[in-house]
Formats: sequence, structure tokens, C-alpha cells
Amino acid sequence: MRNALRRYVPMLEWGRAYDRTALSNDLIAAVIVTIMLIPQSLAYALLAGLPPEAGIYASIVPIMLYAVFGTSRSLAVGPVAVVSLLTASAVGQVAEQGTAGYAVAALTLAFMSGGFLLVLGIFRLGFLANFLSHPVIAGFITASGLLIAASQFKHILGIEAEGHTLLEIVASLLSHIGQTNILTLVIGVAATAFLFWVRKGLKPLLLGLGLGARMADIATKAGPVAAVVVTTLVIGLGGLDGAGVKIVGTVPQSLPPFTLPSFSLDLLRDLAVPAVLISIIGFVESISVAQTLAAKKRQRIDPDQELIGLGAANIGAAFTGGYPVTGGFARSVVNFDAGAETPAAGAFTAIGLAIAAVALTPLVYFLPKATLAATIIVAVLSLVDFSILRKTWAYSKQDFAAVAATILLTLTMGVEIGVASGVILSILLHLYKTSRPHFAEVGLVPGTQHFRNVLRHKVKTDPSLLTLRVDESLYFVNARFLEDLIQNRVSEGCEIKHVVLMCPAVNEIDFSALESLEAINSRLTDLGVGFHLSEVKGPVMDRLKTSHMLDVLNGEVFLSQYDAWSKLSPRHGVNAAE
Amino acid sequence: MRNALRRYVPMLEWGRAYDRTALSNDLIAAVIVTIMLIPQSLAYALLAGLPPEAGIYASIVPIMLYAVFGTSRSLAVGPVAVVSLLTASAVGQVAEQGTAGYAVAALTLAFMSGGFLLVLGIFRLGFLANFLSHPVIAGFITASGLLIAASQFKHILGIEAEGHTLLEIVASLLSHIGQTNILTLVIGVAATAFLFWVRKGLKPLLLGLGLGARMADIATKAGPVAAVVVTTLVIGLGGLDGAGVKIVGTVPQSLPPFTLPSFSLDLLRDLAVPAVLISIIGFVESISVAQTLAAKKRQRIDPDQELIGLGAANIGAAFTGGYPVTGGFARSVVNFDAGAETPAAGAFTAIGLAIAAVALTPLVYFLPKATLAATIIVAVLSLVDFSILRKTWAYSKQDFAAVAATILLTLTMGVEIGVASGVILSILLHLYKTSRPHFAEVGLVPGTQHFRNVLRHKVKTDPSLLTLRVDESLYFVNARFLEDLIQNRVSEGCEIKHVVLMCPAVNEIDFSALESLEAINSRLTDLGVGFHLSEVKGPVMDRLKTSHMLDVLNGEVFLSQYDAWSKLSPRHGVNAAE
Repeated sequence: MRNALRRYVPMLEWGRAYDRTALSNDLIAAVIVTIMLIPQSLAYALLAGLPPEAGIYASIVPIMLYAVFGTSRSLAVGPVAVVSLLTASAVGQVAEQGTAGYAVAALTLAFMSGGFLLVLGIFRLGFLANFLSHPVIAGFITASGLLIAASQFKHILGIEAEGHTLLEIVASLLSHIGQTNILTLVIGVAATAFLFWVRKGLKPLLLGLGLGARMADIATKAGPVAAVVVTTLVIGLGGLDGAGVKIVGTVPQSLPPFTLPSFSLDLLRDLAVPAVLISIIGFVESISVAQTLAAKKRQRIDPDQELIGLGAANIGAAFTGGYPVTGGFARSVVNFDAGAETPAAGAFTAIGLAIAAVALTPLVYFLPKATLAATIIVAVLSLVDFSILRKTWAYSKQDFAAVAATILLTLTMGVEIGVASGVILSILLHLYKTSRPHFAEVGLVPGTQHFRNVLRHKVKTDPSLLTLRVDESLYFVNARFLEDLIQNRVSEGCEIKHVVLMCPAVNEIDFSALESLEAINSRLTDLGVGFHLSEVKGPVMDRLKTSHMLDVLNGEVFLSQYDAWSKLSPRHGVNAAE
Repeated sequence: MRNALRRYVPMLEWGRAYDRTALSNDLIAAVIVTIMLIPQSLAYALLAGLPPEAGIYASIVPIMLYAVFGTSRSLAVGPVAVVSLLTASAVGQVAEQGTAGYAVAALTLAFMSGGFLLVLGIFRLGFLANFLSHPVIAGFITASGLLIAASQFKHILGIEAEGHTLLEIVASLLSHIGQTNILTLVIGVAATAFLFWVRKGLKPLLLGLGLGARMADIATKAGPVAAVVVTTLVIGLGGLDGAGVKIVGTVPQSLPPFTLPSFSLDLLRDLAVPAVLISIIGFVESISVAQTLAAKKRQRIDPDQELIGLGAANIGAAFTGGYPVTGGFARSVVNFDAGAETPAAGAFTAIGLAIAAVALTPLVYFLPKATLAATIIVAVLSLVDFSILRKTWAYSKQDFAAVAATILLTLTMGVEIGVASGVILSILLHLYKTSRPHFAEVGLVPGTQHFRNVLRHKVKTDPSLLTLRVDESLYFVNARFLEDLIQNRVSEGCEIKHVVLMCPAVNEIDFSALESLEAINSRLTDLGVGFHLSEVKGPVMDRLKTSHMLDVLNGEVFLSQYDAWSKLSPRHGVNAAE
């Protein structure tokens, strides 16, 4: 009982060893992360189409729940760019932005996503996330980054625009470009340029001034805060909000409110697919970050417990005015670099943000939306990385096809179709490839007991003995291929008296392949040709023994190919003497 | 040019060698098959919800087109039970039975199915049919057989009933059972009992009377004809059609008419999924029969050319008053047993059926529908074989799950959902299995150069050297598994200085797995542990050389695991001396 509790509540483990050093390290990290998170939370709420406070609320209770249930010592949970985009795309299809229904739909999405993650975690189904291949994720993140950046241009220009695909967004921007507000544009461009400079130029400068590498890193993360403070002061002191610069405006001074998601069946049905998608993409992003950071300190991450931690965080978001959250890359790295030792750092961050929500929200009244858009654009463009196309092209055309399709379809058809197509295409290409497996006719390497491909090596062969090595598990997708292969080879070579199927790379023989082997055996028996197996793996052999294949097999099962060669090749003695 | 023509028109090949012996054999086979096909064609049209003549028309032009384009010498193309059921299910969703729209929808389905098969054939995509595993096909055929038999009970009882699932059909039968026509029931039960006896009892009787086995076989196939003749005479001479026994009635005396499918976009969209399904199921049934018969005479079947042959046959059906067709099992076996040597036998059968369509149709006016239903029931119940459940249960729970789901969902949710679920489940279970591959820690078998599982064999190991053999291709679905596996093993064993990944069963390393290997290498480097590969296959090594994995690898790639052991195990000299 206590062990079960400890398994599901990792806090009980690290909480026992918590001491003063850990406390002071966690506190310092929390202060730094809090300062970074205030503008980021406001910005991602804007991206998700929600009021700015939703971003802050989504960072408070979720981060605390993750601290209790999560296994990563450094992960910082909250709104992230890609999940915010997915939220905007999903909720935008069922409600109008700015309405109460929109906010409720976002809560519902968080609730469903949390429930789905919890179920996956409890039933230990985390492996489902593996269906997203690395190239598909990389392609999806790159395309999403572009989509997000494009969607923020309207705030830089101070115009209205909408759309879920790159084409729609660009067309909408162009049709409204005449209404560009010059002052907004100036602020937006200046903030963007400043933030790019902070990212690229500030760190070398600080290092040159003698600052430590870690402090320089942290200082560059404070760039968005500086941009927020300066542009807010410019608008507020200059009284420029009357000049058409859109500002954040009144943000309620409040702790996270108690909210309820909707349980309307129609809404649940409409949001089911996006909820699954958000859960899996959020989980993959989060677990990648968590594992990378854990490996640096030789800590362990339990993927199934991570699902429970993220599930709890999302359900927390649903009941406290937030929207779907996950472990974010940038914030977690800052947390790690700032010295966070335990999830308590997250809890302290939550307290910091709660104080900000109550005390600091009036200060962002004059904050221009263009500044928030600039922080988003600079953040997401660092995610855009087309080198995955070059890398996969060089290594595997199959992976290239999956990544290219993901990027293209995400940009042109939207995020959901894009990522779904990438996953389906990866699976189909994998099945296609295994449906035509690599195989080799093998012969004996003189002076050894090894058998190698007759086309790649100088080996001894015997025309009465055909030995085929199939380099793939035998299962329904390639069962017919094997039948065709052997039938063709035997019909070509009239001298063949024995066929040996060499199986060191056959990791599975499923029922379809078993029936194919029986069909091959029966056809070869009719032709008076012996059919043998060699080097069958233990687990595969165990399985074969439960069938009647071994009873009907007209030949033998040899432990090694050399045994088969010794017994079946009549010229073997002569060759051995050569 | 001539070769291309010969590839796409196999008739040019066998036609050149056609002689008098082949002609007489083909003619005899054609007469026998024609007699068998007349009642069968009428019955399957009834099953498809079409007027009886549609079954005859669907056997004339399609069989001739297949004779020109197909590669099987024995396959007989025409309406078959499962495809007729699928047609009824698909067309029933877009039109009312008995209306002109229903017949046009059936033509359209044949046209789309033909077009899809042609496209698959021209682009050589026949491998797609491999996604249907043997157990899924077996389960689907069994469940379809039950559904078809159930759907025919209304004709035996002489009542109305409908439904696409077993439950719907049974409920509908029960609610109308009070209207049972006793005379129809007597005829139906008598015909069914007679046909079962012909199937089970007649052949031993004929053999006992000294008839040859082949003739006895053919005589039993004539059972349906006898049932048709006798019951038609009973109704006609007894004047019983006035007593409520439903009869076939007027069938037009005509050659196949020229008809046009509909090109309405709505209809094409509604029928697209069923057309794909019918094409693939029809193709799989047809190619299995063709390959089985070809193997008996050492002939070859070209699957991609078969797609073209079946595609042409279906397009022919669409323009001549038919409906979707494929190569049928029963009729092909009869054709083969009756001695057909070339596809010309099919062409002669078509001529025989054309004569029947013009001359014999008035004779079936009094044929009771109950007799046709009896022939269908007896034919399809021979397809029902639940032993696949027992066999797969014994051999592989994974295959059992796929076949059980296919049977259950086909019976309860209908044919389309049933077979689609079977296919998807097979693929998901395969991916799940490969996502948690079998792996083994291996050691040296004393006195040899072989390495075996430490748990299964008495082998020598070295605590500073961890050798893992993973028995699966490394790809995105199991990339993370490998990372976890090595991280866990290394964090357990502090003495480990070197990790060797033994790859004789790794048939592929995709881009995701490549990145995982790089991540493992970088983590092990941080821990001061060497990371090596051994026994990497040729094609996998060729691929790895195009990446920079081999540059960053902190260890070596060994040709054999024994080389790795010799070099990396410091105690090796001592052990070797033991």
C-alpha cells in the first residue's frame, strides 16, 4: 500500500530528503523562472485566443500538481507554444474567440486531455507516444513554428487576420495590410529586433564584460521582461493607447478562479480528436525535455508516471481557468540552469505567479500586444529547423518522405491533418518496407563456419542446395512475398534438391507466415524438394513447437547453417578438402 | 513494344500455342461450368439485391475480359458470395432495393472497383492486399458466411426481413415469423436438406457405385441444377405460384445490355470506401484461388497483372448490366477439375451463358426463390470455419485477437467495420509487439565463438562488459525502448566499462533509432562507458556510413561479437586458458 502510494506520488520520495540547501537552490530558481514566465504566459494565452490571465492561471495549479505527481526534478509545466496553437485551432472550430463558450471549450479541452493522459498512465500505455517518429515530430515543430510566427504578424501590424493554414493566414494578412497601424508596427519591429539581438548578441557581450556563463544565460532569458517593461512604459507614459496601439488592458486581480469544464456530449465529441492529439504531442514534447535534463544528472524518468503527472496538471488547469498545458522546453531549461533541485522549485514558481496574478496585473494594462507577439515570434522561430529535411534525405528517403509530408500538410492543411498524416505515413512506409524485405542467397566463407551473401562475398555454393537468408520478421505483410520468392527461385533452378531458410534475423513468425511456410512446404514436397530451416531463434522455435508445422515439415530444423551444409551438400567433403 | 503488349495481354502468349487438345478440354470444362453457373449466378444476384439476370450478365463479358488480361489458366470470374454481400451492404446505403437507382449504383460500384484495381495493377501496388492477414481474412469469410446464410432465411420462410448485422437480421426474422408461408418453407427445407446430402452423402455413394472420383466430384456440383429443375417443375406443373411461393418470374431474354454507371459526384463519394474494400477483398480471394491452382501445375501468377485482369472484368461488368465480380473459389475449382487448360475455357463458358441468357431464361419463370436461397445457404455454410479461433489461440494470442475482433465486429457492426477493424488491429498489434522487442544479454558459449542468452545457456560473461542482443529492427516505434533499456542496465551495473549492442537481427535502423543511438552514445560517453556495435548487417552498415554516427561513436564497430569479446574483455586470456 505504502509502495503503491509512493509509486503514484513521487513527492513522498524526494520530500523526505528535502533540506535547507535544496530549499535555497529551489527558491532562487523559482524567482528567475517566475520573472521569465509572466510575459511568456500572457503571450501564449494570446496565441491560444484566450484572455491574458488564462496563461497565468494555467501556470499556477498545474505546476503544483505536477510537483506532487511528476517524476522529473527540473520540468516546468505550463502553457507552451505548440499546444497553445493546437488549442486555438481546436477551440476555434467549436466557438467564437472572445466568447464565454470559447473559454469553456478550452477548459473542456484541458479536462479531456488530462483524463486521456491519466488513463494512458494508469494503464501504462505510454508506448503509444512512440508512434510519433523523431522526424515527424521535428517536421511538425518546424511547421508549427512557422504557422505560429505567421499568426502573430497581425499583432505586429496592428490589423485583423485569421486562418489555420499558412496560405489562409498570408492571404488574410495581405487583404488587411492597408489598415496597418504605423505606431504598432514600429513597436512590434523594435521589440522583435531587440529580442533577436538579446538572443544572438547579448550573451557574447556579457561574457566579454566578464560575466559568468550561467549568469549570462539567465540574463538573456530576461530579455522579454525588459521588452515588456520598456514598451509598457512608452505606451503608458506617452499616452499612446489612444493612437490605435492595441494593449492588453484590464486583467482581473485575482487568484485562479474555480471553473468548470462543459460536459455537453456534442462538445466532448467535437473535441475528442484534438484532445488526443494535444495529449500525445504535449506528452512527447514534455518527456523529451524531461529525459534530456534527467540524463545530465543520472536521474530516472518513469514515462507512465509522467503521464499521470501531466494528466493531473491538465485536470488542474481545467478547474482553475487555464487551458491545456505540458512541460515546456525553454522554461524547463531555465529552471535547470538556475539550479532547481526538486519539483518544489515548481511549487515556489506557482506561488510567485499567484502573487503576480494578485499584485502585478494592473501593471500590464498598457502592455502592447505587439510586444507579446514579438516574444512569441522570436521564441518559435528558434524552433524552426529545416535541417531535418537535409539530414533525413541523406540517411533515409523513407524518413524524408514522412517529414516532408508532415511539414507540407501542416502548413497547407492545418496542424491536425499534418501530424496525423505524418504518423500514418510513417507507419505505412514502415509496413511497405518490411513487405519487401531484404534477402540474400548465402554460401560458405571458405575456412570458416560463416555463411554470407553470394553477391557480396566470395563463397562456396552447391547448385543442389538453395539457402536463403531473409532479413526480416515473417508476418502477414510479407508472408506472400516469401511464397513468391521461393516459388520463383525453385522454378528457375532445376538442380535444386533442398531449400534451407536461414532464420537468424527472423524475430517473429506470425500465423499468416506460418500458413505460408506450410504452403511452401507442401508445394516443395510435391516437387520432391526438401524444405529445411536453420538458426531459428529460441522464442520463434518455442512458438513453432505449438503448431503442427514441425510435424509436416518434409526436412529438418538445423541449429546452425553449417550443420545444414554438412548434412545436405553431397560435395561438402570434396570442398572441405580443397 | 511487343513485349509490353505481351506483358499486359497474356492471351498473346498462350494463344500462340493453342491446339486441338486444349480446345476440346476447354470445351468440356466450359459445358460443365456453364451448367453449374446458371443457378449460382441467379442466386448471387438475389443476394446482392439485384434482378436475377444481373448475375448472368455479370458472368459473360467479365469472364471474357479476364480471359484476355488475366494470368491464371483456371480462374473463373463472376459474382461470388462475399462480394455480393458487400455489394448489397454498400448499395443498400445509397438506394432502395428494386429501384433503377439501385441497379445503377451497383454498376457504379463495379466501375469504381474496376478502376481502382486497374490503377493498383498499373502502378504495381498489389502488395497493399498483404495488409489483410490470413486470420483476418479467415475470420471475415466465416462471419460473412454466417451473415449471408442468415440473410437468406427470409426466402426459406417466405417472409420479409432486412438488416446488415446478425442481430438486425435475426430480430427482423423473428418479428415477421408469423407470416411464414408453409409451402415455401417445405420447398426451402427440402432443397436445403437435399443439397447438404449431395455435398456430404452423394460422392461416397457414387464412388461406391464404381464411378470415377473426378466424375463423382463433378456430379455433386450439379446438385443445385437438379434442385432447381425439380422445384421449378413442382411449382410450374402444380400451379403453386398462386399459393404464395415467391418465384423468380419473368427474366428478359436478352444478351447483356449496354449500360452506363453513374458519374454523380455524391454517389462516387458515397461508394468510394466500399469500392476500395470490395476491390481488395475480391482481389485477395481471387489471387489465393489462382495461386493454389497454379501451384498444382507449376504455373505462375503475376499478382499485378491479375489486378489488371480483374479491373478489366469489373469495368466490363459496369457496362453490361452486371455488378462487382471476382475470381470465385467453387467455380474455379470445378473449372480446374473439369480439365480447363487455358482461359479460353472461360470464354466458352461466357458463350454458354450468353446462349442461356437468350434461350433458357423463360424456363426459370417458376423457379422458387427458396431454392436459390437454399443453394446460397449450403454454399456459404461450407465457408464457415471457427477452427481458425482455436488454431490462432494455440499459436499466437495476437493473431487470435485480430480474428476474434474481425468475426465479432463483422457480425455485430457489419462487414465494412468488421474487416476494417481487423486490418487496423493487426497492424496496431504488430507495432505494439515490435515496440517492446525481445532482447537478451549474451555470453560466450565455452569452446566456441558463439554467444547466447545468459538466461537460456551456460555461458561465460564479464561484469565489465555488457552485451545486449536486440532481436528486432530498430525504428521509431521502439527507439525510446532501446534508450530506456540501456540507461536502466547501465545505472544498475556500476562495474560496466563497455556496452556492446549486438545487431545480427537488426534489419533496419531508421532515422529515429539513429538519433536514439546517438543519444545513448552521448550519455554513455558522459559516464565514461564505451559504446560499441557488433555484427551489423551489410545494408544497415552501408546506411550508417551515410550518417555521422560512426564519427561520434566513442567505441568501435566489430565484425563479429567474438572480436568484440577478445578485445574488450580483459579477462579473456584467462578464460580462454580455462
